[in-house]
Amino acid sequence: MIREDLGKKLLFFDGGMGTLLQAKGLKPGELPETWNAERPEDIIGIHRAYIEAGSDLVLTNTFGANALKFRDGGYPLGEIIEKAVGHVKEAARRAGRSVYTALDVGPTGKLLKPMGDLEFEDAYEAFRQAMVCGEQAGADLIHIETMSDTCEIKAAVLAAKENTKLPVFVTAVFDERRKLLTGADVLALVSLLEGLRVDALGVNCGLGPVQMLPVLEELLSYASVPVIVKPNAGLPKQQGGETVYDVHPEEFARTMKVIVEKGAALIGGCCGTTPEHIGHMIRECKGMSVKPVCRKNLTMVSSYGQAVILGSGSKIIGERINPTGKKKFKQALKDHDLDYILKEGILQEENGAHILDVNVGLPDIDETAMMVEAVQGLQSVTSLPLQIDTVDIRAMEAAMRIYNGKPMVNSVSGKQESMDAVFPLIAKYGGVVVGLTLDEEGIPGTADGRIRVAEKIIREAARYGIEKKDLVIDVLAMTVSSEPQGAAVALEALGRVRKELGVHTVLGVSNISFGLPCRPILNANFYTMAMYSGLSAGIVNPSSEAMMEAYDAYHALLGFDENCGRYVEKYAGRRVREQAA
Amino acid sequence: MIREDLGKKLLFFDGGMGTLLQAKGLKPGELPETWNAERPEDIIGIHRAYIEAGSDLVLTNTFGANALKFRDGGYPLGEIIEKAVGHVKEAARRAGRSVYTALDVGPTGKLLKPMGDLEFEDAYEAFRQAMVCGEQAGADLIHIETMSDTCEIKAAVLAAKENTKLPVFVTAVFDERRKLLTGADVLALVSLLEGLRVDALGVNCGLGPVQMLPVLEELLSYASVPVIVKPNAGLPKQQGGETVYDVHPEEFARTMKVIVEKGAALIGGCCGTTPEHIGHMIRECKGMSVKPVCRKNLTMVSSYGQAVILGSGSKIIGERINPTGKKKFKQALKDHDLDYILKEGILQEENGAHILDVNVGLPDIDETAMMVEAVQGLQSVTSLPLQIDTVDIRAMEAAMRIYNGKPMVNSVSGKQESMDAVFPLIAKYGGVVVGLTLDEEGIPGTADGRIRVAEKIIREAARYGIEKKDLVIDVLAMTVSSEPQGAAVALEALGRVRKELGVHTVLGVSNISFGLPCRPILNANFYTMAMYSGLSAGIVNPSSEAMMEAYDAYHALLGFDENCGRYVEKYAGRRVREQAA
Ligand SMILES: [Zn+2]
Ligand SMILES: [Zn+2]
Ligand SMILES: [Zn+2]
Repeated sequence: MIREDLGKKLLFFDGGMGTLLQAKGLKPGELPETWNAERPEDIIGIHRAYIEAGSDLVLTNTFGANALKFRDGGYPLGEIIEKAVGHVKEAARRAGRSVYTALDVGPTGKLLKPMGDLEFEDAYEAFRQAMVCGEQAGADLIHIETMSDTCEIKAAVLAAKENTKLPVFVTAVFDERRKLLTGADVLALVSLLEGLRVDALGVNCGLGPVQMLPVLEELLSYASVPVIVKPNAGLPKQQGGETVYDVHPEEFARTMKVIVEKGAALIGGCCGTTPEHIGHMIRECKGMSVKPVCRKNLTMVSSYGQAVILGSGSKIIGERINPTGKKKFKQALKDHDLDYILKEGILQEENGAHILDVNVGLPDIDETAMMVEAVQGLQSVTSLPLQIDTVDIRAMEAAMRIYNGKPMVNSVSGKQESMDAVFPLIAKYGGVVVGLTLDEEGIPGTADGRIRVAEKIIREAARYGIEKKDLVIDVLAMTVSSEPQGAAVALEALGRVRKELGVHTVLGVSNISFGLPCRPILNANFYTMAMYSGLSAGIVNPSSEAMMEAYDAYHALLGFDENCGRYVEKYAGRRVREQAA
Repeated sequence: MIREDLGKKLLFFDGGMGTLLQAKGLKPGELPETWNAERPEDIIGIHRAYIEAGSDLVLTNTFGANALKFRDGGYPLGEIIEKAVGHVKEAARRAGRSVYTALDVGPTGKLLKPMGDLEFEDAYEAFRQAMVCGEQAGADLIHIETMSDTCEIKAAVLAAKENTKLPVFVTAVFDERRKLLTGADVLALVSLLEGLRVDALGVNCGLGPVQMLPVLEELLSYASVPVIVKPNAGLPKQQGGETVYDVHPEEFARTMKVIVEKGAALIGGCCGTTPEHIGHMIRECKGMSVKPVCRKNLTMVSSYGQAVILGSGSKIIGERINPTGKKKFKQALKDHDLDYILKEGILQEENGAHILDVNVGLPDIDETAMMVEAVQGLQSVTSLPLQIDTVDIRAMEAAMRIYNGKPMVNSVSGKQESMDAVFPLIAKYGGVVVGLTLDEEGIPGTADGRIRVAEKIIREAARYGIEKKDLVIDVLAMTVSSEPQGAAVALEALGRVRKELGVHTVLGVSNISFGLPCRPILNANFYTMAMYSGLSAGIVNPSSEAMMEAYDAYHALLGFDENCGRYVEKYAGRRVREQAA
């Protein structure tokens, strides 16, 4: 089983397929997958060359074998995939060496909504079909590769996980700015993929081995699973109308050795690499040990473009997309006025939010439909990660499914019913889930009581394989006008959740002042104390001057704003209410 | 020795003298002390009657025997006092029972500055003279009684302590509002007297035994030394041109029993009480045990009128009377413009200060004279306790000496030289002293280091009998623009001084933001965190809106403002910068 070797011994992929097929006469526009049926010996020959060069994992010739790309190929897709898997196995038989057959899954070639027109579920369906065939034909794992769109990756990974039992590896194409074509940085990709619980992840194509080093370094600093590196044979150059790659096998091999030394656990080649490149690489690296993967324990959420890590200082979750107590917002929801919601999102981003809470719950509307629309709409205007905030489990799942990234999910509680419903979604779709410290017996009046509920939530989450890093605890701020100890209990519980339980925290800050005058004064001061007590992320109004002053001052004072640089930049020359204080 | 019995067994004073002398023919305007020379047998007879009734402590007939009151009496003061002491001893000899001779010291009859014209040192001199005579004549203790002015009390106690070795008891006259004539409440008196380290304190005259019960209850709840109660025989009534007291001996005795049950350790009578009252009282109470005095451990400072206890919530020390960085203030000091200083004091009181810092240090002025003048001036316009803030030890002592109350003193440091100079003043004059966590090696960069300096200050103070309750530690807020960890270290140290050392804390808050823009934002947020971390008193600008908002919000949020009542009263209807937060 590949899972037993993964991360423990260095594993070798094969190299390029397309370049070799072109050399054998593949015409421009011709679907390479048809050769599985029409020129099986050529395909088997290429596989065999890689196997003889020493590859442990060999990709099937199925890069474009999905219903959206492999159209009018003249063969049923199922037959093509079955043959492709068979060719790897035949090549291994002939070479007299057993290898892992990796079902190669490339992109659909279409952009998904909201960036393009392809529906998430249509992409999903295309991947599902190919993957089910691949598993039936005997593939040992699924390798989703050369991906540029996190949303498409998510569709592909979900298709694999919901319909097969195979291990899933994912590699994507980064450019020299260390971004995917659709904007994701390394952290956003790692965040998404680890949320989806893939078995290995990494980078392929696009760059040569040397250019991949900075990407690798970032991958290694964030990832808690084994990292795959499959460079091209250098950067592509045009030479007499042809694309050529100019990194020679020896040079390729030397850099791949450095890549293993740095910590890659699976290596291979992409465009322009040949059995000679792979052979040299394996001779250079054979016998090297793999750096153990260390668990990063990062609490991160992401969008299609960026990720937010909780932990250094405090993060701002914009609270404004929520109809509670907002007449205009309620009307906008009833009127299906998506623009209103998007504007609130944009405004909060401009004012400094790091994550946006999205709550569209209202008795008279179809919350599931509205939530999906709001999430997709917001993801078309902002790259901030979103917090899916609903008590409707259907709306929650629908939003988590189409959400492009690893969302924050608000919330689960200590009630058994809530945990039974929410945790399976987190385990499947990925996400950081907010655990409210209340259960069947209500909200405990003491910090001790809230800690006990938090512990229960942590224990139950562990049964689903959800680690503490993917939980944040909301200790609940009870309004002080009715609960005089509300603030004290919340602040104590906050600090203890961080210190004693080692779990991050979140808190809806403004509830504290309900029913009292001049609420911003109370909210801002409570916010400051909460940050100081260990609030990893506050659900606040980023358009509130008082709240942002609290935020900025806290970070400047506590050393989270180097040399107070951000503070000085924002406040120098600003008119302040008073000069002396 | 009286000190051995004190607080362990119930001690009985004698009763009234004046009423009895009038009955024997003392004329209006005649000085009762002349009878020591002229009618010794009458005096001895009265003492003997009390001794035979069972009194343990007998007061000499010297109530008015001081140079300011006993003028034109026809006898040298020393002779009168010597005889008066002798009469108690002769009475005891005749009665065949040994008693403690208490040198009776009453008020001068004049008001001290700034309320009246009498100089502090003139009052002191009058008391000194009488007390030295009393000790030479063989008195066992000094009983300063029927006092109405804390400043005069301070002069009398200092005279006793600096010039005799006798135990000092002090009782004052409270009215039914539980105030001295000059305005001091019970707490202010206790604060002053315990600062001056008297041996016993309490109440006499003015009220009957029943009316004294509420005063007693307050005395017992604050005092850490044995409490004296000496009521009149009821409230005075005019009857046919004469003052009469209508509480009969039996009734007097019954109430005195209740007074002992509540916790008084020394009881006796004042105006209108007779040997019959005292005899009944002693028969009623003989054999009763004394409630053990419990140490209250209150950190308190006081003025002539009121006291401030540190501990519940945080207190505001107004920082504005300080020339540092203030051009106008410096000019006012140079111009000897006391008005300027007083206005700053009044403004800060109006804006909510609990204590006023007084710093008038400037290179070119006579700081001692200016400090004394500023302290006396401020005490004529505000009843807030003051913090005497100077590095000039002469100015510090001069101000502590004339200060009417128990001051806060800023500061001592962990330097041996500083402790050697400041601690003797605290031990003598009373005061709560601010200990700065710096020593010969500078300001430690870590919380650990500052805790170690605080521990050194606490140890050294103990050598002078200065308890932890009379120390507050300033952990020093270093400006974050040059010390990025300045705020974090100060906040950590603050919390640890409170929790680990059990000592109160003080901090100059606004230094944190030096050199940065919009300082009130940083100051207010740091202030909030400091209060939450355990800041007993912040040295801040009470005229700063941001600081007071932080103060008010902290107290409303953390349950120090019952039902947020103060907050609602102050902010309801107030226009706030923004509505939503
Ligand atoms: Zn490639
Ligand atoms: Zn070669
Ligand atoms: Zn009296």
